[in-house]
Amino acid sequence: MSREMLETFDNEFPERDYEIEIIAPEFTSVCPKTGQPDFGVLRIVYTPAAKCVELKSLKLYLQSFRNQGIFYENVTNRILDDLVAVLSPRRMKLVAEFSPRGGISTNVTCTHVASHD
Amino acid sequence: MSREMLETFDNEFPERDYEIEIIAPEFTSVCPKTGQPDFGVLRIVYTPAAKCVELKSLKLYLQSFRNQGIFYENVTNRILDDLVAVLSPRRMKLVAEFSPRGGISTNVTCTHVASHD
Amino acid sequence: MSREMLETFDNEFPERDYEIEIIAPEFTSVCPKTGQPDFGVLRIVYTPAAKCVELKSLKLYLQSFRNQGIFYENVTNRILDDLVAVLSPRRMKLVAEFSPRGGISTNVTCTHVASHD
Amino acid sequence: MSREMLETFDNEFPERDYEIEIIAPEFTSVCPKTGQPDFGVLRIVYTPAAKCVELKSLKLYLQSFRNQGIFYENVTNRILDDLVAVLSPRRMKLVAEFSPRGGISTNVTCTHVASHD
Amino acid sequence: MSREMLETFDNEFPERDYEIEIIAPEFTSVCPKTGQPDFGVLRIVYTPAAKCVELKSLKLYLQSFRNQGIFYENVTNRILDDLVAVLSPRRMKLVAEFSPRGGISTNVTCTHVASHD
Amino acid sequence: MSREMLETFDNEFPERDYEIEIIAPEFTSVCPKTGQPDFGVLRIVYTPAAKCVELKSLKLYLQSFRNQGIFYENVTNRILDDLVAVLSPRRMKLVAEFSPRGGISTNVTCTHVASHD
Amino acid sequence: MSREMLETFDNEFPERDYEIEIIAPEFTSVCPKTGQPDFGVLRIVYTPAAKCVELKSLKLYLQSFRNQGIFYENVTNRILDDLVAVLSPRRMKLVAEFSPRGGISTNVTCTHVASHD
Amino acid sequence: MSREMLETFDNEFPERDYEIEIIAPEFTSVCPKTGQPDFGVLRIVYTPAAKCVELKSLKLYLQSFRNQGIFYENVTNRILDDLVAVLSPRRMKLVAEFSPRGGISTNVTCTHVASHD
Amino acid sequence: MSREMLETFDNEFPERDYEIEIIAPEFTSVCPKTGQPDFGVLRIVYTPAAKCVELKSLKLYLQSFRNQGIFYENVTNRILDDLVAVLSPRRMKLVAEFSPRGGISTNVTCTHVASHD
Amino acid sequence: MSREMLETFDNEFPERDYEIEIIAPEFTSVCPKTGQPDFGVLRIVYTPAAKCVELKSLKLYLQSFRNQGIFYENVTNRILDDLVAVLSPRRMKLVAEFSPRGGISTNVTCTHVASHD
Repeated sequence: MSREMLETFDNEFPERDYEIEIIAPEFTSVCPKTGQPDFGVLRIVYTPAAKCVELKSLKLYLQSFRNQGIFYENVTNRILDDLVAVLSPRRMKLVAEFSPRGGISTNVTCTHVASHD
Repeated sequence: MSREMLETFDNEFPERDYEIEIIAPEFTSVCPKTGQPDFGVLRIVYTPAAKCVELKSLKLYLQSFRNQGIFYENVTNRILDDLVAVLSPRRMKLVAEFSPRGGISTNVTCTHVASHD
Repeated sequence: MSREMLETFDNEFPERDYEIEIIAPEFTSVCPKTGQPDFGVLRIVYTPAAKCVELKSLKLYLQSFRNQGIFYENVTNRILDDLVAVLSPRRMKLVAEFSPRGGISTNVTCTHVASHD
Repeated sequence: MSREMLETFDNEFPERDYEIEIIAPEFTSVCPKTGQPDFGVLRIVYTPAAKCVELKSLKLYLQSFRNQGIFYENVTNRILDDLVAVLSPRRMKLVAEFSPRGGISTNVTCTHVASHD
Repeated sequence: MSREMLETFDNEFPERDYEIEIIAPEFTSVCPKTGQPDFGVLRIVYTPAAKCVELKSLKLYLQSFRNQGIFYENVTNRILDDLVAVLSPRRMKLVAEFSPRGGISTNVTCTHVASHD
Repeated sequence: MSREMLETFDNEFPERDYEIEIIAPEFTSVCPKTGQPDFGVLRIVYTPAAKCVELKSLKLYLQSFRNQGIFYENVTNRILDDLVAVLSPRRMKLVAEFSPRGGISTNVTCTHVASHD
Repeated sequence: MSREMLETFDNEFPERDYEIEIIAPEFTSVCPKTGQPDFGVLRIVYTPAAKCVELKSLKLYLQSFRNQGIFYENVTNRILDDLVAVLSPRRMKLVAEFSPRGGISTNVTCTHVASHD
Repeated sequence: MSREMLETFDNEFPERDYEIEIIAPEFTSVCPKTGQPDFGVLRIVYTPAAKCVELKSLKLYLQSFRNQGIFYENVTNRILDDLVAVLSPRRMKLVAEFSPRGGISTNVTCTHVASHD
Repeated sequence: MSREMLETFDNEFPERDYEIEIIAPEFTSVCPKTGQPDFGVLRIVYTPAAKCVELKSLKLYLQSFRNQGIFYENVTNRILDDLVAVLSPRRMKLVAEFSPRGGISTNVTCTHVASHD
Repeated sequence: MSREMLETFDNEFPERDYEIEIIAPEFTSVCPKTGQPDFGVLRIVYTPAAKCVELKSLKLYLQSFRNQGIFYENVTNRILDDLVAVLSPRRMKLVAEFSPRGGISTNVTCTHVASHD
């Protein structure tokens, strides 16, 4: 759950404003209140500046939440913060769609735009 | 059916303009004219300001309509009003999709925007 | 087929700009040229001003076209005109999707916006 | 609604046991109790003996129920009886899937097998 | 929740072995353990003998479970028993598909065959 | 393949800016290079001015391409040109979706806007 | 439209009872009564004996029906007869699903089993 | 991961041969070779004899595999063995559909039939 | 393309008649006639006897066809033969669904049953 | 993998701003890190200026990546660069949707707009 786990590689097309979408349908963490596992689909859409996230390190970073107790809103905002800190992207959006609990399902959508964008 | 049933927790990311979508597919109330049960899917999408709605209290609040007679348009506007009163969100939209009656189905969509937004 | 069939009730939230969508999948009339029945799905989306349409009267009004000969374009525009005359809505859109004839299907979309909107 | 409306043509492959499926998604009649229109999809599957049903006459025969009051079970059995009387097929199945009423939908399935089959 | 609520009408085609399928997607009762509402889709498939179930009485009978506490397995078996007692059908199958709880969903399927069938 | 085949009727609602969509899923022509048949779905969306296209004449006009050799881009632009010449619509869009060839499929979208619109 | 157009190649696994399914979604012929084009999806499923049908020759054979007037039942039985004559398969089934005409669609299913099978 | 976790309740309809299907879409364990998490959907279908499985205990039992290293085939057979040991059902089938790995997905289906059935 | 590439592991439940389904949607080889790449989805369903196929070796074995010219029927039968030779399963079925070519798609289904089964 | 493989033909409607969409669902290359094949769907949408891309040459150009090691981001940007160099389109967008690896899938979207557009 440390952002140091995230590795990057150089964006070879930094002059072009293009979009990378990463879909991770196997995210799981634990509800801090009930101790029950939560499941969700994460969709990360970003426009890289100098760096892109390396996919294998992203997978291991996401897996590190597996046994951590953390609320929906917090985990979504935290992952966005970590990715923004490591990548400094031009723009990034994170959509987290969590499985229903008690007949009710929740999606959280966070967006970051570089201040100089 | 009282807005006092709705509990909140502090938004830990009040500076970020992000979106929470809550989908409650098991809403049911009673038609005041025919006494027949109505069924609907509620979709609540909001951008929190200082507070977020606690999901379990929301579930109990929605269940409190189970045996109440109330029209489509009224129940949709009322739930929006209650949530806005308790949360003072930056923006909130409520979409209610009701099951067909007499071969005709009805959806109601209400939106609230904070006056200072 | 008379707009006098359409009954209304008072909009209890006239200050809010909200949307009501009514989906009537069992519309049928008769082609005036061939005498063959036509079938279609009507979608009415409107923002009420002072009045809302009562659903049962709408159902009976739509059923009154059952044995009338009328063309696609005419029936769509006429129903919009009748609803606008009775409701004076802020905005109204009517989409009529007709079943295929001769391997070709036709949809007609009409929109009304109140002149003072 | 008379079986005399049904026309036939000779089966050119009477020695082969093959199957014809006819799907008529625009069937409509009237509920004798409420006077409200009913809508359904009819699926006719049969193995012809000496005769096949002519499609245009079948369409007109089915349209003749448009303004007749008749219950689900009766209309399904009656259409099967009429087709069997006119075609004497080796086997015939009629599935009628009616649109929901009061939140409940009904399908009726009738089968005929020639006694010498 | 009393089988006396179920009304019947005479099967006009008792000599034919045909099938009636009734789909009721708006069934709801209450979990006796948690007090939480349960939701399910009921599919009733039967071959009538002398009697058919009247649909409006079936709807009211199913609605009478709305505020009753009863387990999945019990409600499914009980409805089958009530329908069999009232209709004495040749064969009847009841499939109940309940909405997920705790991430797990349950379906129950019961079958009755008349002993002389 | 002559635009003279296209017949029109008067738009009875010329003062209203409304939309007619025509979907013709059975278009077929021939590839001029390989001699192989091409298949496509045409979607015509237009806002009529003084005239609407008559559907049966449109069907026969489209069928007249059946044995003509013509490329994807050309047939799409030509049909749009013919319809615009005959109808002088306020706006018209033609989308042609062709079936895959060599594992690759092609869609062509052309738009016309009246110069005085 | 001549079975001489159908070419074959040797089945290299004649000792194994295996199945080849060929789906041809672009079949078109002409209705002999109305002169209007018909469209259909053909599904051929067969267990080869000594020979398999060569796909390109099958495509050209099916295309040869493009401008021929022939009824649904006849074209289905004829294609089955031609393929059986050329391939002498252990078993063959041909399912032809034709596009709707007058709101009614027709499927024809023919089966051949080798007499020594 | 101990079968002692599984609780049961008495089947109140032991004389009837009926079926209970339980769908658990949030199963996860760990690959013993790679240490990577596996995900799967479990479908349990059984005909109870004297006992039924209690759903909450089943949920906790399945969750106990969360951090255990175990192969696809072993986990499926083991869960079936545990459920059979505790329930002694008349019949039970367990289908486990695992998410793709390396572009390849695997499903395992095990069946138990009571020897006296 | 050598069956020596296929590795196995011991079936730990040899006494149980259970089923393993492996779905490989990324199969590709080359058409020996045209030199064009072919694409297909392979579905392998088998009941293991003493051995199961190891998934990573299966993946590499299937990838070894990537640049080989081989016909649909041959590749399907060959893969079945190789897997049967290595695993000696009780039963095995291989379904190969190839992408359309020239508007026509082909599926091949082969089955092996152990002679002592 | 050379842009010289791409052939063009003259746009016969250069004065019209229209759109051509090409969908190539059978793209495959090789991951330079693991040596494993990658699979993706490419969607090219462009507005031609003087030239259009010839489809067969495009197919062969895309096939030339089959055994090349190249990363997702690079292959997408490179194909866009090659097409832009050869066609000088008014606008072009390339969307590449790659199959999941390690449970995570990636899409890359690049856009080019002519500087004088």
